[in-house]
Amino acid sequence: MADERETGLVLDPKYDASGLVTAVATHADSGEVLMVAHMNADALAATLATGEATFWSRSRARLWKKGETSGHVLKVRELRVDCDQDAIWMRVDPMGPACHTGEPSCFYRVVRDGRLERV
Amino acid sequence: MADERETGLVLDPKYDASGLVTAVATHADSGEVLMVAHMNADALAATLATGEATFWSRSRARLWKKGETSGHVLKVRELRVDCDQDAIWMRVDPMGPACHTGEPSCFYRVVRDGRLERV
Repeated sequence: MADERETGLVLDPKYDASGLVTAVATHADSGEVLMVAHMNADALAATLATGEATFWSRSRARLWKKGETSGHVLKVRELRVDCDQDAIWMRVDPMGPACHTGEPSCFYRVVRDGRLERV
Repeated sequence: MADERETGLVLDPKYDASGLVTAVATHADSGEVLMVAHMNADALAATLATGEATFWSRSRARLWKKGETSGHVLKVRELRVDCDQDAIWMRVDPMGPACHTGEPSCFYRVVRDGRLERV
């Protein structure tokens, strides 16, 4: 039912073989991409229920609310799905740095002439 | 070498078991997320060489320059990597609708009260 998934108004995520969709968080004001991670059905449900971005940690194999220890949660202002419903876009208000390195965004390096430069 | 990958200035993408990284394209001016897809090493190299976003099509199992038939290419203004180098963020100037449905962005539906609404 690809057509219904693309044109319909039913939330019906297309999880991959591991039960995951890709989730992108951008700063609701600046539009900066803060982080990219994954959600399973439970993570998406928790995100929608709490309004705070929750992911599936593949390395730890458990639900992971962003900021659960640091307090740097991502408050979800808006959540969208893409055409084939295998990706989520959240516009968020971050309560602190989104990256575990302390950077505001995980995308703190740009590629120029094949090398990385800090932005 | 997680530390070097996170803090260093060498482009060293961490491809998954399928040889892919996630690639997010946002509108360089508005910050709107246009699409999420995947790149292998050849797609990333082609993107960097041509300045036009090129992906790996998992469904067709081949390199796929966005807009190769429609002309709706994504001109890459800036390309970033995230902390662990398993995701790419491109700020692009789209030469037409990014979505194959004709919508400017693939993310044309928002989740509200468990249902989808067109934005």
